Amino acid sequence: MSAASTTLPADALTYDQAGVKYDQVDPIKLLAQQSAKATVANLAAKGLTEIAASRGESAYVLDIGHAYLASIVECLGTKILVADAVYRETGKSFYAAIAQDTIAMAVNDLITVGATPLVVQAYWAAGGSDWFNDRKRAADLIAGWKAACDVCGVSWGGGETPALAGVVESDTIDLGASCVGLVQPKSRLSLGDNLAPGNAIVLLASSGIHANGVSLARKLAERLAKGYQTAIEGGTTFGDAILAPTTLYVPVTEALAKAGIAVNYTVNVTGHGWRKLLRHTSEFTYRIHTVPPVPPVLSFMQREAKLDNTEAYGTLNMGAGFALFVDAKDAEATAHIARQCGIEAWVAGAVEAGPKQAVIEPISVTYSADDLKLR
Amino acid sequence: MSAASTTLPADALTYDQAGVKYDQVDPIKLLAQQSAKATVANLAAKGLTEIAASRGESAYVLDIGHAYLASIVECLGTKILVADAVYRETGKSFYAAIAQDTIAMAVNDLITVGATPLVVQAYWAAGGSDWFNDRKRAADLIAGWKAACDVCGVSWGGGETPALAGVVESDTIDLGASCVGLVQPKSRLSLGDNLAPGNAIVLLASSGIHANGVSLARKLAERLAKGYQTAIEGGTTFGDAILAPTTLYVPVTEALAKAGIAVNYTVNVTGHGWRKLLRHTSEFTYRIHTVPPVPPVLSFMQREAKLDNTEAYGTLNMGAGFALFVDAKDAEATAHIARQCGIEAWVAGAVEAGPKQAVIEPISVTYSADDLKLR
Repeated sequence: MSAASTTLPADALTYDQAGVKYDQVDPIKLLAQQSAKATVANLAAKGLTEIAASRGESAYVLDIGHAYLASIVECLGTKILVADAVYRETGKSFYAAIAQDTIAMAVNDLITVGATPLVVQAYWAAGGSDWFNDRKRAADLIAGWKAACDVCGVSWGGGETPALAGVVESDTIDLGASCVGLVQPKSRLSLGDNLAPGNAIVLLASSGIHANGVSLARKLAERLAKGYQTAIEGGTTFGDAILAPTTLYVPVTEALAKAGIAVNYTVNVTGHGWRKLLRHTSEFTYRIHTVPPVPPVLSFMQREAKLDNTEAYGTLNMGAGFALFVDAKDAEATAHIARQCGIEAWVAGAVEAGPKQAVIEPISVTYSADDLKLR
Repeated sequence: MSAASTTLPADALTYDQAGVKYDQVDPIKLLAQQSAKATVANLAAKGLTEIAASRGESAYVLDIGHAYLASIVECLGTKILVADAVYRETGKSFYAAIAQDTIAMAVNDLITVGATPLVVQAYWAAGGSDWFNDRKRAADLIAGWKAACDVCGVSWGGGETPALAGVVESDTIDLGASCVGLVQPKSRLSLGDNLAPGNAIVLLASSGIHANGVSLARKLAERLAKGYQTAIEGGTTFGDAILAPTTLYVPVTEALAKAGIAVNYTVNVTGHGWRKLLRHTSEFTYRIHTVPPVPPVLSFMQREAKLDNTEAYGTLNMGAGFALFVDAKDAEATAHIARQCGIEAWVAGAVEAGPKQAVIEPISVTYSADDLKLR
């Protein structure tokens, strides 16, 4: 991406400058993935098999006979620091929203493989026992967690609420969630085996920044005279807008299954923004003819951080939080069902035979395979 | 417990003084548990049922028809800070051991319900991208993680390796693990329905402190002139002894299942030490006639922290890391099978009709129901 971004102004604020160094993390990530892969031998002794194609995908899938078992653990990341700052500055608690974000990180990934999420576990590691003394904050977190579980139709199975002074910074909390689900019937598996030229790409609206690109937002807030209290379009503040909770896409994938619409592949648009469209291992061209309206908080960020479209769409979701790849004949019905779930949707493009690239025509941006190294 | 400990010397170091305030955490834990319980309604819509008795137990159990699905998320806690300190002081890396501890926290809890662990996911939240730049440390963590998966026969499905500067303290890492497994056949469910007077209590050896009581150990190290480098019995140092990795009990429960021995109930002896023997909701008396030899690191801690037996056994595992409740006729075979797995075991006591209490006869300590409020 750096090559494509050489025209950025000298004072532009990129993700690299915001302190997230993918170069440093990824080699160890790869070593971990290779070591993880070798443990599949342990399953053979039990007469079980994994779905190898799920390694490196957003959730791990195991064949348990009558169904596939999907599991995942995810973290919220640094969005909690925005909630903490806004709470300190204004007294407004966004901890219910933050709870939804955390669950969204897990369930929106789990559904990418075609699973119905069934159980969520809470991982709440506080910087000290004192965190839970603010009962309003803690009660909001609990209420938001439960509400998100209800939207997703999952059981909140339990979890961990350790106090980890010395590991987690004082007066904040490291939030994560694990999620387990079943792909049932097995035909719902959406790892991309049926992904093919001619498939339609349906984009689902995001609610804003979701929980990715937050380090950039925080860095940007430091640059602004009024920080998170900076007014932005729509009569809100930068901080409040960042803290719009991540959309939960579970109702959509469940409604599609009920309607009998086969989902060939999906992408949860998180870190790496629209470069994630290149996630599948196949060699295809993804041609986008329609981009969603950009949420005010993201256009504000693009403008203030002086990002060109290549950098902005390659980092942030820019209005598209989830992508569904379906047979062309199902495209309009897919978008219709999403809207019935209260989530705006666009039949935005198509899969084509051709070199591995994502061509975002309305903004004249192309990402090639080199722009996304996740495996 | 405080009432029972009024005879402690004034300079004794209790868990409360070590900064872990269960009083503050527990009410919110209870509110979370109640909210979690209400989400069971979401399962009904899917035609699924939970095993209600698993709420408040160490792992959550869902009926998926042909089997029960068990899931959990767990954290390592502050033991990482001991590894960090010893690494800084001596250059000795215990990150492979720490990885085993983290997995043990999850799998040793998951097996309490009778589940075979199948998939582990890694939650590694570093204080910054730089954590992974120390390739030796990171590679040790990965190697230890894989080795522990191999011992437990689980597949390492994947995980998260976020860099969370500002949430996690710099130069350390918040480690957690989620685990999923199946109880299959369903008769392996060991939530205590068959727990009854006459059952034998078989204790399995711990390797040392495991990952509970670590805050106390850290506080104690501050009191010692040589800190973690203090020599203790057995030709080792306090720090190295603390960092002995937690025993993985999965091979034992799997071997018992293969041998056809029914396990009625189990207790993973973690926080709250032997008070955990009172975990089951039933009204029984647990009478212990044999206590295991105390690992040197724990007798050192008891002596240096000036803890009486009530406090020591009520906080630390004191040599017993796991308890199995089996029919009396199976007691000796259970201990034998554990030893075949390389884990020392003792037929240590029995379940009796009577008031809810744990009577540890060799040390003249009794814990009553009031001493353990976990639900």
